[in-house]
Amino acid sequence: MKVAILPIGNELLDGRVLDTNSKFLGGELAALGAETVCLLTVPDDLACIVDSLKFSSKRADFIIITGGLGPTSDDLTREAVSEFTNSKLIKHESLVEEIKAFFSKRGREFHPSNEKQALLPEGSTIIPNTLGTAPGFITKKDSLSIVALPGVPSELEPMWRDFVVPLIKPIKEQYVLGFKTYNLPESVVAGCIPDLEDVRVGYRAQFPEITVKIAGFNKEKVLRAFKIAKDSVGADAIFTEDINQSLPDLFKNSKKTITVAESCTGGLLGKLLTDLPGASRYFLGGVIAYSNELKKSLLGVETVDQFGAVSSETAMAMAKGVKGKADVGVSITGIAGPDGGTPEKPVGTFYIGIATKDDLKAHHFLYKGADRARIRKAAAYEALNILRKIVL
Amino acid sequence: MKVAILPIGNELLDGRVLDTNSKFLGGELAALGAETVCLLTVPDDLACIVDSLKFSSKRADFIIITGGLGPTSDDLTREAVSEFTNSKLIKHESLVEEIKAFFSKRGREFHPSNEKQALLPEGSTIIPNTLGTAPGFITKKDSLSIVALPGVPSELEPMWRDFVVPLIKPIKEQYVLGFKTYNLPESVVAGCIPDLEDVRVGYRAQFPEITVKIAGFNKEKVLRAFKIAKDSVGADAIFTEDINQSLPDLFKNSKKTITVAESCTGGLLGKLLTDLPGASRYFLGGVIAYSNELKKSLLGVETVDQFGAVSSETAMAMAKGVKGKADVGVSITGIAGPDGGTPEKPVGTFYIGIATKDDLKAHHFLYKGADRARIRKAAAYEALNILRKIVL
Repeated sequence: MKVAILPIGNELLDGRVLDTNSKFLGGELAALGAETVCLLTVPDDLACIVDSLKFSSKRADFIIITGGLGPTSDDLTREAVSEFTNSKLIKHESLVEEIKAFFSKRGREFHPSNEKQALLPEGSTIIPNTLGTAPGFITKKDSLSIVALPGVPSELEPMWRDFVVPLIKPIKEQYVLGFKTYNLPESVVAGCIPDLEDVRVGYRAQFPEITVKIAGFNKEKVLRAFKIAKDSVGADAIFTEDINQSLPDLFKNSKKTITVAESCTGGLLGKLLTDLPGASRYFLGGVIAYSNELKKSLLGVETVDQFGAVSSETAMAMAKGVKGKADVGVSITGIAGPDGGTPEKPVGTFYIGIATKDDLKAHHFLYKGADRARIRKAAAYEALNILRKIVL
Repeated sequence: MKVAILPIGNELLDGRVLDTNSKFLGGELAALGAETVCLLTVPDDLACIVDSLKFSSKRADFIIITGGLGPTSDDLTREAVSEFTNSKLIKHESLVEEIKAFFSKRGREFHPSNEKQALLPEGSTIIPNTLGTAPGFITKKDSLSIVALPGVPSELEPMWRDFVVPLIKPIKEQYVLGFKTYNLPESVVAGCIPDLEDVRVGYRAQFPEITVKIAGFNKEKVLRAFKIAKDSVGADAIFTEDINQSLPDLFKNSKKTITVAESCTGGLLGKLLTDLPGASRYFLGGVIAYSNELKKSLLGVETVDQFGAVSSETAMAMAKGVKGKADVGVSITGIAGPDGGTPEKPVGTFYIGIATKDDLKAHHFLYKGADRARIRKAAAYEALNILRKIVL
């Protein structure tokens, strides 16, 4: 199967938006054994979109269009496919009702311009969008299949997985195994995994997590390569073998209760611990002790004057102060920058304090050369990485 | 000037590598007043690259190729340009020497395959690469200019800035104005802005913020359209006219100090208020009162039994309890779901409490049909939106 991907939108051509959909789709297609022969991004212009359909139709037998399905006048995917396939646009009353229901469910007013989203080229099959108002569709022109999906990644990905993938017959059955490592640069992970015969090794870095995926058509070789890859990276760095699971997700299995005291992360650790529902089983809450005054008044911290707000002593005092009735109290204090660094404690320095019934300690970290957002994220994730070993 | 960007490489088509060069180049070109008319990514295949050059040459007068300049047999950009322009590949001895020097400086051995990188289509001008072994080049075919740059972003970017940009004369000066609105669906914003003559209106939704950008070459028309667009949306919904500014960024100008008490958002509001450096000037910290026990013990909230944890009474008690020495205490309590909703207080219900020296009140919200992440984000942003009117 030869596939062309056609992302539509001025925002993809003038530097406003990074196209992550095409990387996602390219990887998915490769996993299905299909070949992506070209990727042609064009602006919100009817003639350009039709032109790109013509170009692709000569090179591929399956075209995936992303974007251009919104309600505004510059959303032209429907019109372009209609012109290219010589078919009229038909209004689907069932879609009008669904879009109206989508708005009313959210207590928002339905705008007549949204009716446009119920128009599809004649002969199309609807690809339902449960997360937005832009339905996708699939249609044919002779032996060519054309799929149109919305450009919003959070809508595109489930529509792709739930409705398009089942339509594509995998050429050969593929075996995929993977794991996620924490806080190793992609180049280090890639460097320690040897060239593995007859399998494809894929990396995906989403700081501070790296996903390693081993895929191939020979089950035994994939299993063997998976074992070699895991041994190369080291068990300690691997936090899950479920590549759909993020580090904060592991806490849903926590057997212990947690409280947090955050300084430089300002609430990020608590936010991550409560991303998944059911967090109240293990997360009690805590204190955002951004100012030194709150460190004292809410946590009883008395170490700031002598040791500084960013010190192992203060981290321990914060963890101890916040623990309360929880099994573990965890604290973060550090210098997220860009200002506030000193030669002894440069920007990127942080301490994580841990208080349990029997133990009180602090861990020291230094993330050199990282920016504020990365340092804060690293600090929250380092705390999660320490926590997981205690509560799981 | 019409530009086509041609990224070359299998790794861009099968999900291994995310193409960030094209976003970079698209943004740079837009700023120079040039129009990127298409972006065509093809595999490491001679016929495909020549084909993509033919396609682009009919639509653009300036082609930028990225990638395919390495020393291996699947690096084919030089060969493809040579074939497309009907010119021989010429070995540049000065480049051979430079590549040798590059290797010896790094203590690495020069491999004969690297000599290939000294081959350029006849008539090309060298674009030096000080950070790698792959030189770029620029050549012409009639009135068409073709630039080839390496695919490694850290090599491409300085070569672009130092050697290509000076060759491009900005065509026309473009005027761009914009604003950001809060919490209006894109279709509503688009629906209330009329078609504006001779200007381009762009929308970009990043929940819960929508950016509206008005661009054109006639300054007066852009100014007039900008005013019409602002009036159409309404001043109250516009929180900034600086489209690079996010709602949380406004707080760097806060004249008042803030403390927060968060329940369902788990720390997200504090995290947003501390994203930018300098937050300690206005943000003191607060309490993550996720459990009812912490609402009582850390905030002195006594309303939970009578009114429930999610109620205006509890929101007010939390805000009052956290205010302390700050000018404003703000609280969030709600049902982020997916469980915990009741007919009276469905999932998506939240209350924001505000305590100041003279005032104590609560605001009620209902985000119907949204998922947990969206409800939490909405709650934090609604709190910021209320706060900004108090502290700015």
